[in-house]
Amino acid sequence: MKIVLDAMGGDHAPPVAVEGGVWAAQEHGVEVILVGREEDVRRELARYDTSGLSLPIVHASQVIEMEEHPAAAVKAKKDSSMVVGMDLVKRGEADAFVSAGNSGGVMAGALFRLGRIRGIKRPALSTIYPTTTGFCFMLDVGANTDCKPEYLLQFAYMGVAYTERVLGIANPRVGIVSNGEEETKGSILVQEAHQMLKKSGLNFIGNVEGKDIPAGMADVVVTDGFTGNVIAKLSEGLATSLLGIIKEEVKKSPLATVGALLSKSAFEQVRKRLDYAEFGGAPLLGVNGVVIVAHGRSNAKAIKNAVRVAKQAVEGGMLAAIKDGLQSL
Amino acid sequence: MKIVLDAMGGDHAPPVAVEGGVWAAQEHGVEVILVGREEDVRRELARYDTSGLSLPIVHASQVIEMEEHPAAAVKAKKDSSMVVGMDLVKRGEADAFVSAGNSGGVMAGALFRLGRIRGIKRPALSTIYPTTTGFCFMLDVGANTDCKPEYLLQFAYMGVAYTERVLGIANPRVGIVSNGEEETKGSILVQEAHQMLKKSGLNFIGNVEGKDIPAGMADVVVTDGFTGNVIAKLSEGLATSLLGIIKEEVKKSPLATVGALLSKSAFEQVRKRLDYAEFGGAPLLGVNGVVIVAHGRSNAKAIKNAVRVAKQAVEGGMLAAIKDGLQSL
Repeated sequence: MKIVLDAMGGDHAPPVAVEGGVWAAQEHGVEVILVGREEDVRRELARYDTSGLSLPIVHASQVIEMEEHPAAAVKAKKDSSMVVGMDLVKRGEADAFVSAGNSGGVMAGALFRLGRIRGIKRPALSTIYPTTTGFCFMLDVGANTDCKPEYLLQFAYMGVAYTERVLGIANPRVGIVSNGEEETKGSILVQEAHQMLKKSGLNFIGNVEGKDIPAGMADVVVTDGFTGNVIAKLSEGLATSLLGIIKEEVKKSPLATVGALLSKSAFEQVRKRLDYAEFGGAPLLGVNGVVIVAHGRSNAKAIKNAVRVAKQAVEGGMLAAIKDGLQSL
Repeated sequence: MKIVLDAMGGDHAPPVAVEGGVWAAQEHGVEVILVGREEDVRRELARYDTSGLSLPIVHASQVIEMEEHPAAAVKAKKDSSMVVGMDLVKRGEADAFVSAGNSGGVMAGALFRLGRIRGIKRPALSTIYPTTTGFCFMLDVGANTDCKPEYLLQFAYMGVAYTERVLGIANPRVGIVSNGEEETKGSILVQEAHQMLKKSGLNFIGNVEGKDIPAGMADVVVTDGFTGNVIAKLSEGLATSLLGIIKEEVKKSPLATVGALLSKSAFEQVRKRLDYAEFGGAPLLGVNGVVIVAHGRSNAKAIKNAVRVAKQAVEGGMLAAIKDGLQSL
């Protein structure tokens, strides 16, 4: 299997991207095609023992920066690592594309170069969300700020296809984010989408409130990209803030400080359970190719795991699953 | 000062409501008018030493239950504690109304009995949101699921009026919830409201992302009632989930368990900083009267503090402040 890694994507690229790529090639036994400025990538690669690994470099002279306007950048920079990398997938020379770069850029690049799956109205960004019982799969988390009910219905089908076929959860419970449990609660958008989901044939459990998401009430959490983005960023921020508050209070008391030292291993486990790097990345669903978006702040472990997610998506037949799912619509 | 307390409102009413009312009369030196089924309220009241306190009972034979349809219930139950209590405020026989009951019912009751402040398009439910640096004031958290940009602008003015005059924060920083920092980010609603806020003369700091809210980036956080409700409930749920995960991991190790015992006091401080009961309740802004909504799960401390919030709102001239704020619009 050949997986393209955007060697220039992410806050710590290229060093961290290349390190994660090497690690992925070792651990997941795939060919990792590093796309980026050849000189930079080669220099980074020289720092590792890559004997026996398949890590070809494909040169791309341009980089789409984090703060660039996505669509404009993708159009202007035809020789960027994103565009060149996507084209490898388009031409069938690679099976998947992974990037920790500008997520809007990945989205725009995927739309322009790979296109949508026939019948899909809007692709959606997804995320794996840690819960008390494990994790749930949430979409959209930022691709579509203003949605129509039918988009949310399609997000549900795509989310179920991915969750079943790639994450291995049978008959996943689907919930739609709302401001109350009852089906009469919610914005006009959510109320209309709720009615469509009820008739969808999916394992629809109804509305999920904010508190129900971290409690793990649903396996697939459907929402518009505005709300989903707020949820994802709020959750990350809140976990950080809360751990910060705990640290602050612990420091105030010498006894508590000793206590915290003794419970250090437990806190490390907590951080691990919440760590985005463990999940690596999540797919951009609805485009005609396997595209995995990793966190901009990705460290090498996150990049390595994002490549694993790509591998699993290819092995699980993600694209075929989504196409099958659409048939039932 | 006379504050009406809905003795039948909340998950644990009337016992907890009455207990909180007695406590409030003692601690805040106000007259607490207990509205509800006289026999029930009298029986609860008999359990306390109320000598020297002013705790009159006003009989109301009906109760609006938590799961009832708000508007229909308020219309049908003219002798409910909510309607009777609101009417005391309307007739000038009391200065404020406090309830931990059905928040939609409080909203409907306030609209029908007290009406809106002239010029206010939509009243908003607010909440005090704990942050790493203290708290912020967020609105709307559930009254209006579908908003227009001008509603959000009014929420900002009302929020600033309350935050300055009642919470005592000078020149509060106003942020609008969005899915990105740049002003071009956000739903159509948010982008339009952003432009209005820029010209508002308020201390507008721009978009706040999910992660920025718990970090305390803004003092007044403006959003639509759908998003605000999701944020408020998610935050409460996530804090609970996270503390649950910590407990779970701590229990796995005897050493960590000992450590946690030593740091118990620090964790109690953390819980206190996050405890909604400390804040008591938050106002329904935009109606023509001081109406404080407390959490449905309120304990006696939360009820007591909600009465304090009502007292502060009356003393701070909340209604006049909102009316003044509207002048500048």
